Amino acid sequence: MRSMDTRGLHYIVEASGCDPQILEDVNKLKEILINAAKVGKMDIRSVHLYKFSPRGISGLVIVSSSHISIHTWPEHGYAAIDVYICGQGSNPEEAIQYILQSIKAKHAHITEIERGIMDEEGLYTHTILSWDEIPK
Amino acid sequence: MRSMDTRGLHYIVEASGCDPQILEDVNKLKEILINAAKVGKMDIRSVHLYKFSPRGISGLVIVSSSHISIHTWPEHGYAAIDVYICGQGSNPEEAIQYILQSIKAKHAHITEIERGIMDEEGLYTHTILSWDEIPK
Repeated sequence: MRSMDTRGLHYIVEASGCDPQILEDVNKLKEILINAAKVGKMDIRSVHLYKFSPRGISGLVIVSSSHISIHTWPEHGYAAIDVYICGQGSNPEEAIQYILQSIKAKHAHITEIERGIMDEEGLYTHTILSWDEIPK
Repeated sequence: MRSMDTRGLHYIVEASGCDPQILEDVNKLKEILINAAKVGKMDIRSVHLYKFSPRGISGLVIVSSSHISIHTWPEHGYAAIDVYICGQGSNPEEAIQYILQSIKAKHAHITEIERGIMDEEGLYTHTILSWDEIPK
């Protein structure tokens, strides 16, 4: 069952100063993504991780109507994270905070996009808000 | 093999006035996503589609270091699309145009995010550009 409501929250995050060892550990990242979905109260459908040559991992968790993704560059301590969740009852911000803490990010540039909003002409659009933060 | 370069282009699209029959056809959407990855010159790793109750589909294509996703609401003629691609040699804009044409979108609100850019303090950030368009 999923919401008929088109509105969703999509967080787009650039994480700096992360722990390189965590960023290249497939099992650890898998555990982090699964726990993030649980912390965010999301309903997991499937989890996919790929390790690239020479370095770096892509991980995706498919949740109902939405997804979490992480793409890592261990050599730069950098990770690109997305959490997109539709409908009520989930906590995407808590999922993001959990991931940032788990990969030991020292800085995050975050953009929150509110998606699937109808404008005055009946067309779907989104709104954008960006900020920087030092993860706790 | 994937690029060491952290920079990537992420297109976030709200598509209005789409064909409801296509938005609830799992096989058709799967074909569209696979073709979009080909048109965009992306290297497909795996393809995942989920049909929800009462209506709506989520589809994800995992490509090297990146992903394509679509979440559909047939009852509203609405689809939320992401194409995120890292490294050189791909054509994410062509992938987006292919998807918009294939689902017969009448209007698209698009935000282009350039991700994984380093700022003057050595921290990763992103830049944002938004526009509206009428797909051809």
